[in-house]
Amino acid sequence: MKEQLTVDLNCDLGESYGRYHLGDDAAILQFITSANIACGFHAGDPSVMRQTVKLCLESGVAIGAHPGLPDLVGFGRREMAVSPQEAYDMVVYQIGALSAFMHAEGEKLHHVKPHGALYNMAAVNKALAEAIVEAVYTVQPEAVLYGLAGSELIKAGERLGLATASEVFADRTYQQDGTLTSRKLPGALITDPAEAILQVLGMVKEGKVKTQQGEEIPIQADTICIHGDGPHALSFARHIQEVLTSEGVLLQAKGGAGK
Amino acid sequence: MKEQLTVDLNCDLGESYGRYHLGDDAAILQFITSANIACGFHAGDPSVMRQTVKLCLESGVAIGAHPGLPDLVGFGRREMAVSPQEAYDMVVYQIGALSAFMHAEGEKLHHVKPHGALYNMAAVNKALAEAIVEAVYTVQPEAVLYGLAGSELIKAGERLGLATASEVFADRTYQQDGTLTSRKLPGALITDPAEAILQVLGMVKEGKVKTQQGEEIPIQADTICIHGDGPHALSFARHIQEVLTSEGVLLQAKGGAGK
Amino acid sequence: MKEQLTVDLNCDLGESYGRYHLGDDAAILQFITSANIACGFHAGDPSVMRQTVKLCLESGVAIGAHPGLPDLVGFGRREMAVSPQEAYDMVVYQIGALSAFMHAEGEKLHHVKPHGALYNMAAVNKALAEAIVEAVYTVQPEAVLYGLAGSELIKAGERLGLATASEVFADRTYQQDGTLTSRKLPGALITDPAEAILQVLGMVKEGKVKTQQGEEIPIQADTICIHGDGPHALSFARHIQEVLTSEGVLLQAKGGAGK
Amino acid sequence: MKEQLTVDLNCDLGESYGRYHLGDDAAILQFITSANIACGFHAGDPSVMRQTVKLCLESGVAIGAHPGLPDLVGFGRREMAVSPQEAYDMVVYQIGALSAFMHAEGEKLHHVKPHGALYNMAAVNKALAEAIVEAVYTVQPEAVLYGLAGSELIKAGERLGLATASEVFADRTYQQDGTLTSRKLPGALITDPAEAILQVLGMVKEGKVKTQQGEEIPIQADTICIHGDGPHALSFARHIQEVLTSEGVLLQAKGGAGK
Repeated sequence: MKEQLTVDLNCDLGESYGRYHLGDDAAILQFITSANIACGFHAGDPSVMRQTVKLCLESGVAIGAHPGLPDLVGFGRREMAVSPQEAYDMVVYQIGALSAFMHAEGEKLHHVKPHGALYNMAAVNKALAEAIVEAVYTVQPEAVLYGLAGSELIKAGERLGLATASEVFADRTYQQDGTLTSRKLPGALITDPAEAILQVLGMVKEGKVKTQQGEEIPIQADTICIHGDGPHALSFARHIQEVLTSEGVLLQAKGGAGK
Repeated sequence: MKEQLTVDLNCDLGESYGRYHLGDDAAILQFITSANIACGFHAGDPSVMRQTVKLCLESGVAIGAHPGLPDLVGFGRREMAVSPQEAYDMVVYQIGALSAFMHAEGEKLHHVKPHGALYNMAAVNKALAEAIVEAVYTVQPEAVLYGLAGSELIKAGERLGLATASEVFADRTYQQDGTLTSRKLPGALITDPAEAILQVLGMVKEGKVKTQQGEEIPIQADTICIHGDGPHALSFARHIQEVLTSEGVLLQAKGGAGK
Repeated sequence: MKEQLTVDLNCDLGESYGRYHLGDDAAILQFITSANIACGFHAGDPSVMRQTVKLCLESGVAIGAHPGLPDLVGFGRREMAVSPQEAYDMVVYQIGALSAFMHAEGEKLHHVKPHGALYNMAAVNKALAEAIVEAVYTVQPEAVLYGLAGSELIKAGERLGLATASEVFADRTYQQDGTLTSRKLPGALITDPAEAILQVLGMVKEGKVKTQQGEEIPIQADTICIHGDGPHALSFARHIQEVLTSEGVLLQAKGGAGK
Repeated sequence: MKEQLTVDLNCDLGESYGRYHLGDDAAILQFITSANIACGFHAGDPSVMRQTVKLCLESGVAIGAHPGLPDLVGFGRREMAVSPQEAYDMVVYQIGALSAFMHAEGEKLHHVKPHGALYNMAAVNKALAEAIVEAVYTVQPEAVLYGLAGSELIKAGERLGLATASEVFADRTYQQDGTLTSRKLPGALITDPAEAILQVLGMVKEGKVKTQQGEEIPIQADTICIHGDGPHALSFARHIQEVLTSEGVLLQAKGGAGK
């Protein structure tokens, strides 16, 4: 008997801020199984956080914290030389803030996924990765840690005994060592939806991805990053959901949360 | 047999921010029984919060959250026309953030005291008071609510069933209706330490205070606000601690927390 | 021989911030004669400011600074108890920052219009109005001061000898004393475009407006506030531009700037 | 006939923020000839800027802008991956803001010195250095550019034709290539005041510095960085001023500004 293939579709939500509206959260929620909610440092504000938590609960998706660097104008996308201790502190703070809105609804966070430059730095910087993992473990040891497949962050999470979800990308190409092709290099993005779908199917069903160099390498695909904005975000999300379902892949967040 | 008179001495702590140092937290901790820790909006940052929580735990004082308005440059002292919903959201956020650092130490918050202009507005604005009380109740219903004696905040807390601590001031004069004399008016401050001590003793032992108009009015004195900076803060804190102790008043935070 | 009727159409521009996009600046520029550019406190960031200055220069509209309260999450719309000195300082700072981007293009600011709650407070608070006027005068004495028609701000500007432009609103109703009906009261907004156009024509051509109470009062209409976002903003802007032009009203900013 | 040796003593000033006080500006002003005033991004606020400008004018020191990264909690000391365009924009903005307070006093900025991590990044990153230089040139082409002696910043300034002042440090050791020894390495700091003074004299009088490796290399010493806080800052500043004066070195900012 075949084992049931399962994968999670996650998306960044709650990125509005005050008068500024970003993303179509209500629409994308139809297609995903877990949401990463901004916590006020790179995006989001307390009111947006409360509203987004409610919206996600109504949709039944698994809810995670999406802590970022304290750089609102840069949307948390500019690398900053934060120390491991500073990273620990800012992650504890942000998880705690979002947890209070979850607690208000009688719920707990399902997962934590660092955002933007913090995510990228934690993928390759072991000390930073360990600080973030420590923060998650300290505040909520049963939370699932989302990180780039094969990254220092996932490794640090595993060492500390956290449940982890290895994240893959539909629309990014990979290098021989399993890292993403830098956006600064040509060919970093997969712009053909059909090709992106094929890559996802290969990662989810075969556990493999063809690198930019043309070789197949193994990859762990627990959760797929879905973009919530951009002109074709919704249609691509719907498409990937349909294809995976028709291929018999069960869509749900780790531990069974999500639709 | 006489009932044991008890009062709490509280002080605002953790008001440093990044490179900016404010107050002598370690020194004032010797004289107080509860601490209100800034949560990053009007003062404090994640690293300062973590350090201050540890410092307070080592000293055995009761720890509370000190949420404020999002106005760092104004130190949360400038009134802002925030809606009750915004006040609810920012208090939930800040309590949550500080709670995560408490949770990291295996502890829970003992109390919540709004800071500065938020405290003052909540003293007279019923809708704002109820929003703040709702936030405290939602995140941690067993927390003690600190507020100005006789204020809308204390009344709202009592209506919702929160434990409350009515706060009094040693160095401020009172009006006939039990409110503080506005700092914009002459005679708002009591600058003579001996007079301030006398006022405290009257409030704690007799439950009365003489107003600026010369009449005695009843006042509930559960906790006394101690200032942590200024040239004479430490000596006055020591003095008030010694006098109250010598008068047989037990110094401890509500519920027995604190030395 | 008839005197040429002239009026300015102004709009708030450059309100995007980092990743957050707000308003369709390029489109609204077709219909206005002066632009108020946010300066980084309530909206706008240095990069947005530079780009917006260039965009406005290409369109030939008069460029002004739009200083606001330091409240990004509240978009500068929440009243804050800032002192006159603080208002002076924050206005000098913001005018200076925008002026540098003008200077980089070999230009000077045409006007200054306080934003949001700062505008509203300065309309009724004489000390605040004088502080703002002093800031404008100090940094650029030849700048035109935009303010609510009949407000303390306009009066303070006239006392100090600044050129002023009295602003009127197409879609707001007026009270007997010339103030705007509070948005908290019913009937504050004029939702029928035809009625709004009629009000504008009366103000510009007759110098009168019919109050909510039904009486006509005199009003000075030098500049009309045009909204840059909202579903019908562009079509209404186009409509008002067309009607005024067809009625023989010359559209230009004070001093002849603008198309 | 001997040429008159001249050097500038510069110090970072105006680093207070709201309720937070930093440095003893009034005291250090006695010993320096130029001041770098924080512009609100890493430190300083509009009110502090106004007050510091006045204080410096009263003391007769040359006044410069000290633009930094938008990282108040990190005091602008954490490297951030800002693009050259972003650096240009934030420097134009900050110079403009401070210039407005100078203009209010009828004065112009004498110089610009990038702060903290922006200074360090501009010392080695040519594109960033050119963007900063372009910003200075655009807003005030006659301003003197302060930068690390031998840095990309100074080179970029010279290429564009800006007046430059090469900065040296009394209390830091140098490497063979003229760069400062990283603070992360042992021996980066010179803690013996006598040794620091000797290093300064060698740099100013001989144009040479002995590297950590023991060899003498040439160095351009136009301005010496004086620290304004720390326990021994004032006494060291006084000491260096006295020694240089007694050695016949004229203390003044480039162009003759400063006492």
